[in-house]
Amino acid sequence: MKIEANAKFIITGDSVTDCGRARPYGDGNGALGSGYAMMTAAALDAVYPERHIHVVNMGQSGDTTRELKARWQHDVLDLKPDWVSVMIGVNDVWRQYDRPHHPEIHVSLEEYRASLTELVTATLPSLSGMVLMTPFYMGQEKEEIFRKTLAGYGQIVRETAEKYGLVFVDTQAAMDAYFAHYTPYAMSGDKIHPNHVGGMIIARALLKALEFDWNH
Amino acid sequence: MKIEANAKFIITGDSVTDCGRARPYGDGNGALGSGYAMMTAAALDAVYPERHIHVVNMGQSGDTTRELKARWQHDVLDLKPDWVSVMIGVNDVWRQYDRPHHPEIHVSLEEYRASLTELVTATLPSLSGMVLMTPFYMGQEKEEIFRKTLAGYGQIVRETAEKYGLVFVDTQAAMDAYFAHYTPYAMSGDKIHPNHVGGMIIARALLKALEFDWNH
Amino acid sequence: MKIEANAKFIITGDSVTDCGRARPYGDGNGALGSGYAMMTAAALDAVYPERHIHVVNMGQSGDTTRELKARWQHDVLDLKPDWVSVMIGVNDVWRQYDRPHHPEIHVSLEEYRASLTELVTATLPSLSGMVLMTPFYMGQEKEEIFRKTLAGYGQIVRETAEKYGLVFVDTQAAMDAYFAHYTPYAMSGDKIHPNHVGGMIIARALLKALEFDWNH
Amino acid sequence: MKIEANAKFIITGDSVTDCGRARPYGDGNGALGSGYAMMTAAALDAVYPERHIHVVNMGQSGDTTRELKARWQHDVLDLKPDWVSVMIGVNDVWRQYDRPHHPEIHVSLEEYRASLTELVTATLPSLSGMVLMTPFYMGQEKEEIFRKTLAGYGQIVRETAEKYGLVFVDTQAAMDAYFAHYTPYAMSGDKIHPNHVGGMIIARALLKALEFDWNH
Amino acid sequence: MKIEANAKFIITGDSVTDCGRARPYGDGNGALGSGYAMMTAAALDAVYPERHIHVVNMGQSGDTTRELKARWQHDVLDLKPDWVSVMIGVNDVWRQYDRPHHPEIHVSLEEYRASLTELVTATLPSLSGMVLMTPFYMGQEKEEIFRKTLAGYGQIVRETAEKYGLVFVDTQAAMDAYFAHYTPYAMSGDKIHPNHVGGMIIARALLKALEFDWNH
Amino acid sequence: MKIEANAKFIITGDSVTDCGRARPYGDGNGALGSGYAMMTAAALDAVYPERHIHVVNMGQSGDTTRELKARWQHDVLDLKPDWVSVMIGVNDVWRQYDRPHHPEIHVSLEEYRASLTELVTATLPSLSGMVLMTPFYMGQEKEEIFRKTLAGYGQIVRETAEKYGLVFVDTQAAMDAYFAHYTPYAMSGDKIHPNHVGGMIIARALLKALEFDWNH
Amino acid sequence: MKIEANAKFIITGDSVTDCGRARPYGDGNGALGSGYAMMTAAALDAVYPERHIHVVNMGQSGDTTRELKARWQHDVLDLKPDWVSVMIGVNDVWRQYDRPHHPEIHVSLEEYRASLTELVTATLPSLSGMVLMTPFYMGQEKEEIFRKTLAGYGQIVRETAEKYGLVFVDTQAAMDAYFAHYTPYAMSGDKIHPNHVGGMIIARALLKALEFDWNH
Amino acid sequence: MKIEANAKFIITGDSVTDCGRARPYGDGNGALGSGYAMMTAAALDAVYPERHIHVVNMGQSGDTTRELKARWQHDVLDLKPDWVSVMIGVNDVWRQYDRPHHPEIHVSLEEYRASLTELVTATLPSLSGMVLMTPFYMGQEKEEIFRKTLAGYGQIVRETAEKYGLVFVDTQAAMDAYFAHYTPYAMSGDKIHPNHVGGMIIARALLKALEFDWNH
Repeated sequence: MKIEANAKFIITGDSVTDCGRARPYGDGNGALGSGYAMMTAAALDAVYPERHIHVVNMGQSGDTTRELKARWQHDVLDLKPDWVSVMIGVNDVWRQYDRPHHPEIHVSLEEYRASLTELVTATLPSLSGMVLMTPFYMGQEKEEIFRKTLAGYGQIVRETAEKYGLVFVDTQAAMDAYFAHYTPYAMSGDKIHPNHVGGMIIARALLKALEFDWNH
Repeated sequence: MKIEANAKFIITGDSVTDCGRARPYGDGNGALGSGYAMMTAAALDAVYPERHIHVVNMGQSGDTTRELKARWQHDVLDLKPDWVSVMIGVNDVWRQYDRPHHPEIHVSLEEYRASLTELVTATLPSLSGMVLMTPFYMGQEKEEIFRKTLAGYGQIVRETAEKYGLVFVDTQAAMDAYFAHYTPYAMSGDKIHPNHVGGMIIARALLKALEFDWNH
Repeated sequence: MKIEANAKFIITGDSVTDCGRARPYGDGNGALGSGYAMMTAAALDAVYPERHIHVVNMGQSGDTTRELKARWQHDVLDLKPDWVSVMIGVNDVWRQYDRPHHPEIHVSLEEYRASLTELVTATLPSLSGMVLMTPFYMGQEKEEIFRKTLAGYGQIVRETAEKYGLVFVDTQAAMDAYFAHYTPYAMSGDKIHPNHVGGMIIARALLKALEFDWNH
Repeated sequence: MKIEANAKFIITGDSVTDCGRARPYGDGNGALGSGYAMMTAAALDAVYPERHIHVVNMGQSGDTTRELKARWQHDVLDLKPDWVSVMIGVNDVWRQYDRPHHPEIHVSLEEYRASLTELVTATLPSLSGMVLMTPFYMGQEKEEIFRKTLAGYGQIVRETAEKYGLVFVDTQAAMDAYFAHYTPYAMSGDKIHPNHVGGMIIARALLKALEFDWNH
Repeated sequence: MKIEANAKFIITGDSVTDCGRARPYGDGNGALGSGYAMMTAAALDAVYPERHIHVVNMGQSGDTTRELKARWQHDVLDLKPDWVSVMIGVNDVWRQYDRPHHPEIHVSLEEYRASLTELVTATLPSLSGMVLMTPFYMGQEKEEIFRKTLAGYGQIVRETAEKYGLVFVDTQAAMDAYFAHYTPYAMSGDKIHPNHVGGMIIARALLKALEFDWNH
Repeated sequence: MKIEANAKFIITGDSVTDCGRARPYGDGNGALGSGYAMMTAAALDAVYPERHIHVVNMGQSGDTTRELKARWQHDVLDLKPDWVSVMIGVNDVWRQYDRPHHPEIHVSLEEYRASLTELVTATLPSLSGMVLMTPFYMGQEKEEIFRKTLAGYGQIVRETAEKYGLVFVDTQAAMDAYFAHYTPYAMSGDKIHPNHVGGMIIARALLKALEFDWNH
Repeated sequence: MKIEANAKFIITGDSVTDCGRARPYGDGNGALGSGYAMMTAAALDAVYPERHIHVVNMGQSGDTTRELKARWQHDVLDLKPDWVSVMIGVNDVWRQYDRPHHPEIHVSLEEYRASLTELVTATLPSLSGMVLMTPFYMGQEKEEIFRKTLAGYGQIVRETAEKYGLVFVDTQAAMDAYFAHYTPYAMSGDKIHPNHVGGMIIARALLKALEFDWNH
Repeated sequence: MKIEANAKFIITGDSVTDCGRARPYGDGNGALGSGYAMMTAAALDAVYPERHIHVVNMGQSGDTTRELKARWQHDVLDLKPDWVSVMIGVNDVWRQYDRPHHPEIHVSLEEYRASLTELVTATLPSLSGMVLMTPFYMGQEKEEIFRKTLAGYGQIVRETAEKYGLVFVDTQAAMDAYFAHYTPYAMSGDKIHPNHVGGMIIARALLKALEFDWNH
């Protein structure tokens, strides 16, 4: 398993990460929210207690890449993490469609790539490792506008991870595998916010990428 | 305009109709909710005050056709309406996909047709007129499972209206016209519950079918 | 229809405009309140979606012309509107009668005319168009003191609109037409705040003045 | 002063009497509400403490004569009063105008007279004395529809009081005297519910009719 | 009646005056609290509406003379009154007995006299008239410690009123007259805070001192 | 110490006993309220843990002897106590003075003696021991009406305890000793409800009567 | 993996199972609580979506075996499960120590064995499989009274599972493994209620016993 | 009894002292919380009212020695006490075990000794007397990690008290005596926060050390 003993592991992103975590730090009993960040922390500590890994959920509901970047120094760098995981971008796309009259808050593909690169290069030198996770949309029509647009953002996540040698998690693929057996309506009212099963699917995809061994 | 002076007009359905109407009767100032039922009532009274039309919103959030049928006697017939308008069916389909483990609450196409027919035949003899409105889904991918399934229910609405000579409103078509210019995300978080614009689109489609004249 | 594609249209005034709109901006789903501003926005977007008109409700309950003027820069000019609509004055009169011991908060006819003129001249140069709407009182006794006094303010609205070539809406006349068929008690507890029907009457009067075509 | 020592005096009516009195009995410290019933009780006890008069407020907001009659046995007769005062009727008229679609809840002049007579004849034999007070409307236009209609009900109060030799209080006249100096807006948002000054005006009119001596 | 037309009359003191008045000013409908200040205002306006007297309740629960003095500029002088009425002192005594460990908050007879004199001399020059009311205690044992101590403060009120020719109200005497017929328990749980009857007794004593005529 | 090992000890009475105890049983952690019953339980268990005494607080705010008697079977006998302690009577007197218009709820000396006797004789046969405590009033004027009346009730408590050989606690004397050093205002706003010091004084008086040894 | 496709799997027990599940059924999105039942459901559906397993959490905070037995028909049998898992007993022991005065609510070892046997024999014939899980205590002192007593109950679980060929889960052992690396204080304030890590440890122990394959 | 007349006695510490005391000062009726500080104050005033001892509870839930030291000037020295009692340290140990990932908030034995010494030497010169009380843990296994670690802190309390000649209270010993007869579960859910019996045990231990005489 890639994460070393005594590491501090910050998981950040938007509402899919946040899930009701405590403020100012999503850190400690009852403070990690109810989503994949909590499940990842639970699994790491349940299976590898001897490593004493310290997980902190720093997700923020509603964030686009722009807000994440604005709070990066305070919410990530100042906490001196050893590992960082990021899943961001669904709001970059959503705002383009649900707030059509407000182009000033839309985050373009170009800005997304530049910001992601800036976050990685500012952080990577002081880390043991970094994880990039694609944002995802549960709708299964590949040509649907949200899904199609978001795929472009996911592609940038993949390219950035490859370029900098980061751990890459294709959450879209992990979710799609589930939807071979259920419709998206079984998991979500809006095809964006997953239920507990989605939380586990994402946590499992993240843990697999970290070479976590359930039978350890 | 089809609705005669002093008529009592009951508008019923599910949450798209309900929109926070008062209990037990959605009738009077502040009691009609915030959706198309309120807008229809407002337009009828604003433009045809001399007709003194009495609109009552009897929508119930969460209803499938089965629940609507169960409360029909109490919520519709007992009120002795002159006109009745019904839009039902989106939950008949939704439950099939969001509650897959509970087939006992799914309403099939067969049950839908039978129930709609029963409601119409039980009510029509004592009415001046009756309106059937299709349920709708805002997603624009025609092959998407929810939309495709719902289209079957909408087809039954059309056939039933034709068979019994009812006023027919194709809300799906009215909504689709709007989505030639906006994505569904601009109107709704879940592609099912419309905002105020959707309320006006539905009210206008209903009013047009009633031969309402805005410039009266 | 007078309002051009992609226009930002600010509707402002007192509680008759406000109707529970969101703060700081009455802008977006669920944010436009429940009155004529919301209905106007709904109708514009439902009937002319291809124009992508952006309506913002900036009404403020309790405002007299004096308070409206004090927030004009921040609430209107700073938002860079293309169109502005104003209905103000009922509180200018009401305070004269319900707070008789506080003459310092009464707004006289002279102040009213001067302020309205100042708002118009400060704003008009940067607009595509501007709408002035009369305030109204529902009581039908023309010699009743509130109604009679308010008529003087409404006359100034008319004169100002004519002087500057603005779109003029006689809401008092639109409301009075309704009260040929109902008493004011059917619409309002205080003859000042309209129900949903009154909201639609005002919206329709505004839309007519804008040459809106319901059958577009 | 007409009310004898140790008398129980029940004051009943609608919201003008109720004013937030306690349930089930408006009786005791902090329980008499904030209106004329409380002020009457306060004045009787402050000026005639040696009489130990026991005032109970049994007003009920929203009541028409019909509801008052339905609760008369439980709320008045069962309490075995020595004196009873009644002011009812404003809702009998109001419902005719604010609920025009619901004629089944309108109380006609005929029903009003019959009910008032029935209440008086059922109660008078066991009383020391009974007071009838007219309902009132603050609007000063005598031909205005609410005021004009209500005057008919007030006339029945006067006739009934005369016929049965009851103490009669013309609250409409007492209020009108005040409005020679203020507009109704200074006292009320709806011309129906008085403020503390109105409460004192009504209490004083009632006390004068009872031959209360302020300088006792 | 001493108070002239168009006068502003500020009534101030502690919780016996306050009684839940509005902040920052106890002025207008529903804003005068439920005690003698409201009743005084109600009676002045009900009986002398032609004088348009403007009553403001500026009582503050918990105040001793020290706190009253500290807010005098802001709460009294800045409002430019024509008449001022003060009842203060019960907390000056109460704190001596309920907070025995905190002598720093006890207000002595000497401080009381000095402060009262200072308030009078700072205010009187700009007034039409000023009223001093004694504080009171409902317990009827003249040698009881609270009552006995408070009597000393009441004596200073009397002397100060005489010295400066102010209107003097002996509220203690007015209350004691009532307790010839009832025990204090009928009016108050703590012998300090009066009920509605006590409010009327105090208002009547104040009005009598002002030569108010109930039959005006 | 009189109370034997494993005894169940029910302490009952009015609000002086209740002090916010849990419902339906004042029994267990956080359930005994904040008054003398809790302090007695705490002292018994802290000093005599080897006896495992089970204290239950069954006080009920507002109770007179009449209400206590009505719930005696359910609240005392059904719980099969070994010891019972009762302090009741202050409301028997209070109601005579704060509800003068309601003689039907006043409990006379005769009824008090009869009820107390009935409670004792119905209970004593199945008990190890029973305690009667006088009600008390904090005012120190012996001729004050409440104090004087209550003394009569306290005398009946003493006589009943003597007649039946019960443990007797003179709480009035215990409280008076304290008021040699403080005024009643230091302990209570109404001279009836004691603070924590009063709770300890009563608990200590009760424990002394039970021959409790603090240094055990 | 032992649980077959389309199985209904009821997980029941006390607060360790409940964890805030919905009422009446802990079934569906957001309804499974935050503990091991939710995590087990999430893992089964995330890893084996093709089996469509339907998990229902029927835990009830505060239950001893006695309460569980009382609701077994309604909460388990009536739901017609295919699989049932039970973890009960910690309150059977806790009540012996935190409610020492109430032996009537203590559940003895004998009653525990009898009840568990009754639940198993009543249910097993209609099931595909049944799971028994030991209750656990986090304190690591084997001779500590709670832990030692609870071990006796755990032994009965083991024996019952063996006797009836049920799936057995030694949660005490699973938890103890974790406490080789952390003190109990890191997981729990009371050594009874686990945090999210404990939830995952229990879920993993249950899943392992069911031959769940994380890498499926 | 050691505490002299008119002394101000500050009792401070963590949540065991705090118990819901008022802010900013735990001083006066209803303000001392529900724990040993309140009971100590109650007993001192109930038994020695002639001394007029002024007890103030300045405990703060959650405090370690570090937080206590930070607020010492404001919360203790600025109040100019004559006597001070301190019980601190349980959180110094607890944080080591429940927040293992946050060593920066753990208070070591060395820091504990140094801080305690600093508080004593800064305060003692201006005092009549000072009390040090050991922190305690209710678990009875002497080798259990929390208990064992805490014993080290208690030993420092004892040594510091001896070194400076302070009054020493061994609360651990006082509590242990109780647990010869009950398990810790009867008193506490977490073995740290005592119930009312524990409050009395601690108060009695403190009072004994102060040579308080219950029979005074």
